[in-house]
Amino acid sequence: MQNLEQQLDFILELDRLKAVYRQVMVKSDNNRRENSAEHSWHIAMMAQMLHVYAAEPVNVARVTTMLLIHDIVEIDAGDTFAFAAQAELDAQEAKELDAANRIFGLLPLEQYQEMLSLWTEFEAAETNDAKFAKAMDRVLPLLQNMKNDGGSWVKHNVSKSDVIARNNLLDGLAPKLWTYVAAQIELAVGKGWLRND
Amino acid sequence: MQNLEQQLDFILELDRLKAVYRQVMVKSDNNRRENSAEHSWHIAMMAQMLHVYAAEPVNVARVTTMLLIHDIVEIDAGDTFAFAAQAELDAQEAKELDAANRIFGLLPLEQYQEMLSLWTEFEAAETNDAKFAKAMDRVLPLLQNMKNDGGSWVKHNVSKSDVIARNNLLDGLAPKLWTYVAAQIELAVGKGWLRND
Repeated sequence: MQNLEQQLDFILELDRLKAVYRQVMVKSDNNRRENSAEHSWHIAMMAQMLHVYAAEPVNVARVTTMLLIHDIVEIDAGDTFAFAAQAELDAQEAKELDAANRIFGLLPLEQYQEMLSLWTEFEAAETNDAKFAKAMDRVLPLLQNMKNDGGSWVKHNVSKSDVIARNNLLDGLAPKLWTYVAAQIELAVGKGWLRND
Repeated sequence: MQNLEQQLDFILELDRLKAVYRQVMVKSDNNRRENSAEHSWHIAMMAQMLHVYAAEPVNVARVTTMLLIHDIVEIDAGDTFAFAAQAELDAQEAKELDAANRIFGLLPLEQYQEMLSLWTEFEAAETNDAKFAKAMDRVLPLLQNMKNDGGSWVKHNVSKSDVIARNNLLDGLAPKLWTYVAAQIELAVGKGWLRND
């Protein structure tokens, strides 16, 4: 039963991701902050719907698993705002690697290696699957902010060039989505939700 | 762009599942009630870890998608407590079918049919994939209650035979998991968390 006990420890540890709160607000639930567990569910669903726009086909099952696990490290490392200062983002990277080793390390060896490898691939964003997964993680907050009068952008005075830099990996990867997103960014500038720099 | 607009409408509609609250408590987050979006993430992760115990192999990707979408109908139909009276559970079924048609119906035709078919398969719990997915949905609350002094069982005075009837589809499907779960149920009775009927 050793393996099962390890897997159950991991599964129960995951409960803690429901207590990690992000900057994005859940408009449907009285504009409370969104937690990383429900966010992970939402982008996994998004990938299942939008993978058809990938210029080179992606492996949806792998992309889904990447998205389900990508934020688990935040149980130890916390969430850092996407547009935080670079020094803060760098420090976060080291904390997340420790977290990945501890949390995925609760699993039996083979699953640990599999999860760590998938998480590392996501972070590196070099493969087509990882790039597409990363794009989903970045585009959903944009859609949420667009439906919420600018949401976390307005609160943190985010600029147009920041949002372009964060989302333009879509260009080439899923051109039709990039066209849509680029137009939304212009719209957000027009509404005063993004600083026009 | 018609398809993309439909898909984005669906994706944004999903935000509302974060406002559907279940009976199970999130111990890691001050024992607040769990919502159906984070629950869906958690059981999808669980399936990814525990599918290795299925007596007949399951298609993990299909099981994962089933679990990601299984509660979406609650956006319209709300959550019903697993151990509610039968009449209430029956009424819920009709509401959920309407909800499935409305919400999956936001998608382009092909994706609508695909999602509706997968959700119907989950609900019927006749295929091996659907049975395994259903089992994940049922076992996680048991694990959560065991870590939380009986949690929603105690609050609603649930009996041992109710929990056995709800979980014994594991017997045969994943015998090792059933052995574990059956032992946990006995433990819960011993602790006074389940009524011994």
